[in-house]
Amino acid sequence: MNGAESLVNTLVDEGVDVCFANPGTSEMHFLAALENPRMKSVLCLFEGVATGAADGWYRMRRTPAATLLHLGPGLANGLANIHNAKRASSGMVNIIGEHANAHLKYDAPLASDIEGLARPLSHWVRRTASSNTLAGDAVTAIEQASAKPGKISTLILPGDTSWGEVTAPKGAFARSGVPAPGVPGQGQIDRVADVLRSGEPAFIILAGSATHGPALEWAGRVAAKTGCRIGTQFFTARIERGAGRVPLERLPYAVPQAVEFLRGFKHIITVETGEPVAFFSYPGKPSLLKQPDTQVHELAAADEDSVLALEMLADAVGARATSPVYQAFEDKGLPSGALNPLSIAHALASAMPEHGILVDESLTTGRETMGHTAGAVPHDTIQNMGGSIGYGTPVATGAALACPDRRVVCMVGDGSAMYTIQSLWTQAREGLNVTTIIFANNSYQILKAEYANMGFGAPGPQALAMIDIDKPSIDWVAMGKSMGVPATSVATAEDFYHAMMRCNAEPGPSLIEVRL
Amino acid sequence: MNGAESLVNTLVDEGVDVCFANPGTSEMHFLAALENPRMKSVLCLFEGVATGAADGWYRMRRTPAATLLHLGPGLANGLANIHNAKRASSGMVNIIGEHANAHLKYDAPLASDIEGLARPLSHWVRRTASSNTLAGDAVTAIEQASAKPGKISTLILPGDTSWGEVTAPKGAFARSGVPAPGVPGQGQIDRVADVLRSGEPAFIILAGSATHGPALEWAGRVAAKTGCRIGTQFFTARIERGAGRVPLERLPYAVPQAVEFLRGFKHIITVETGEPVAFFSYPGKPSLLKQPDTQVHELAAADEDSVLALEMLADAVGARATSPVYQAFEDKGLPSGALNPLSIAHALASAMPEHGILVDESLTTGRETMGHTAGAVPHDTIQNMGGSIGYGTPVATGAALACPDRRVVCMVGDGSAMYTIQSLWTQAREGLNVTTIIFANNSYQILKAEYANMGFGAPGPQALAMIDIDKPSIDWVAMGKSMGVPATSVATAEDFYHAMMRCNAEPGPSLIEVRL
Repeated sequence: MNGAESLVNTLVDEGVDVCFANPGTSEMHFLAALENPRMKSVLCLFEGVATGAADGWYRMRRTPAATLLHLGPGLANGLANIHNAKRASSGMVNIIGEHANAHLKYDAPLASDIEGLARPLSHWVRRTASSNTLAGDAVTAIEQASAKPGKISTLILPGDTSWGEVTAPKGAFARSGVPAPGVPGQGQIDRVADVLRSGEPAFIILAGSATHGPALEWAGRVAAKTGCRIGTQFFTARIERGAGRVPLERLPYAVPQAVEFLRGFKHIITVETGEPVAFFSYPGKPSLLKQPDTQVHELAAADEDSVLALEMLADAVGARATSPVYQAFEDKGLPSGALNPLSIAHALASAMPEHGILVDESLTTGRETMGHTAGAVPHDTIQNMGGSIGYGTPVATGAALACPDRRVVCMVGDGSAMYTIQSLWTQAREGLNVTTIIFANNSYQILKAEYANMGFGAPGPQALAMIDIDKPSIDWVAMGKSMGVPATSVATAEDFYHAMMRCNAEPGPSLIEVRL
Repeated sequence: MNGAESLVNTLVDEGVDVCFANPGTSEMHFLAALENPRMKSVLCLFEGVATGAADGWYRMRRTPAATLLHLGPGLANGLANIHNAKRASSGMVNIIGEHANAHLKYDAPLASDIEGLARPLSHWVRRTASSNTLAGDAVTAIEQASAKPGKISTLILPGDTSWGEVTAPKGAFARSGVPAPGVPGQGQIDRVADVLRSGEPAFIILAGSATHGPALEWAGRVAAKTGCRIGTQFFTARIERGAGRVPLERLPYAVPQAVEFLRGFKHIITVETGEPVAFFSYPGKPSLLKQPDTQVHELAAADEDSVLALEMLADAVGARATSPVYQAFEDKGLPSGALNPLSIAHALASAMPEHGILVDESLTTGRETMGHTAGAVPHDTIQNMGGSIGYGTPVATGAALACPDRRVVCMVGDGSAMYTIQSLWTQAREGLNVTTIIFANNSYQILKAEYANMGFGAPGPQALAMIDIDKPSIDWVAMGKSMGVPATSVATAEDFYHAMMRCNAEPGPSLIEVRL
């Protein structure tokens, strides 16, 4: 058995049985080892698709996927979506092929400082020493990635460690185990319970594993009992929402609206997140969104067991037997007429696939209207935690592989979609149930608002030429066709609704261009 | 005047009058400053297009372009082509927007270690301290980028330095000047002259500024006088070639062939490059390509004046008045029949636009047959120095902007083209004279050979699924159409020839899918 075979065996033994790959010459032995039938390998035509897909996989499965990338530049191409995954606390194991050790000193064209590139966006980086250390290093990489919150592990694989024979006995390495989440302290729980019992206005901000599953139920009981409000930051890694779920409010994105939203609260209670801060800085606008006299209390840190913390809080405020208020189903009816954010939201709500996964990179089009889909059939939403655009279509790809029985609806602005549009090809290759909705406003529309937010008013012609993407406008039906994804273009709300319904009924990927 | 205006003014004052941009919110003041009519700004829909275009610009103009990228992830998306540019010694000035200083401590979603990401692939990195330091920092960045060989400068631009008022007087900063190239030592010239006079077989390997312009002439005189051979590595940043030029031999790519090529030489003389090394390492194959007893002599380092060095060498061997042997024009005639590497090369040779710029990322299809185009009309070739694929279409974009009166022919494999396919959109937007030729073999064909080179024979089904990109096959005509580039598909050599001739005659971009 060579090092690459040992690595692939170890990955699948430890539960990492999917690999999003964009290999090169230095990874040929890994490729040969992928003949292992226990590993599902998925080819991506750009590395940002691979790393984004690993993020999407983790969001739904809560276990890390592997990526296979080709030396420093291959890693570099994957870094933006590694950044997004890191901010989403999505665990992943990146395997980076590298020149053989004996070759490094010749500084061949593809050589670069892989550790240097990996470190800023990885929690754990290691260059394996030999074929014999690979299995142990892989186990450590997976343990790190699987911690709570999920971590970015990056394992560098020199060619000779891949092709060299393994002589160490199987399992001959130390195992640390996955770090256990911290247990919340009763003192902190009691302090938060005191705050909630005081009757002063309080807002609990949930994140991480507290926005789905049992944590939501406990938070709902606490809210029903104490009258506090519960919600999320503007962006959240994954929320279970829709009819029958405990509904969460959403902090607005824009600074003035967010400040206004938070104005009335005397207390902000955080669960796996920090106090709300502005996404960007603007001249003369605050970075902190709460009022100066609002107190911030941490109920559970990201590395703590927040489900337990919320259960303990429910007990502390006497809410164990309280019934949460659940979201009612809202029939939005068949939308009609012109496409605008509101009619789009209505169509989305009405055509939402049951237990669909809504990957949201809609920016301006979807930003202010997501509330209108809160009463749709149960679904998950996934949002961009790192702010690097081009996350949507890759994450949708990984989420669809993770949940083959659920339809993924990926809402993405045209500007954002172009960064990692190669996702469509992988969706076609794997026959994934993804509906990609392109909001085609032929513009980085968000930047027009941001330009104004900076105090400039309307952009001049040169600035506008860096914001509008209408010359030429992108033909999204042709783009879908080029990569084997059936595509249609719609210009009315009813056509959009019917197109979504057709996609729901038809297995495999599809694309809808929403002409704005 | 604010910092951003000071920066844009300084860039154009110092001759950097093109900016390949993919901006975001943190760069809005820079965008406003782009209203400066002396700056040409070019929007790219992915950052790898922007950095690759800056590389292409430098290859032809020999002066740096600027890029504008959005925080750490925007830089990350541009890094692979920065790697390629660094290996090509292409100078560029990267401007990286960053959060305002006061905002940094809140660790907002898009925050990351920009210096950490920039350093592995930049020669010079600086975070500007204030609006007042921006002009001086920009001058230093440009001086560094303009050195010989060209360097990667990365200037980090926090939002408040961009929007803050400049209070320092214009020009109130120290100027180091562009470092002058080193003057070759007479002793080294004489040692090489002795080698050449000895009559022992010698191969001069030219690179950098020695593969175009007067250096070629001097090298040709030396070869004609002494009988030495002259050539290049397999990859070279830019070669002036074709009828009437001094022809250069090309070292083969594959290790056994390269070793065989070099076997007979007692001496290798390097000009702006090192001794030949294997691109990748393979079990049991050498990294060094020369014979152990072959001596390597450096005529000029990359930071020295190699034109002067070759002139001094010509004088030292008495070749000043010797006439070089020039490449004769070879009429390959009209190709016909099936498309294969040979017929493709013949078609390329016959349809080569006069003074065209041939950007070569053809990998397997073009690799072994480029020699057949050596006798075409005069043209330049540009090759990938860093090995990170996806360099071709961006470099072609930048080269076309740099040389609006010349047609760029970009030969690219289908696998490579997908990494940075967004280039097509910028080509359409700017009406650039680029003919993109996609060699559509529906495969990372090169990896099949590399798989065999590793000693595995033919790939198994799982490995093949990571190499073939035929399910689905990409519809390149639809891809061109999606981004506004007229496209055609050809299946015979004569159709390919005629398609190229039509593209030569028609201003603006076009795409030819060569079905293999």
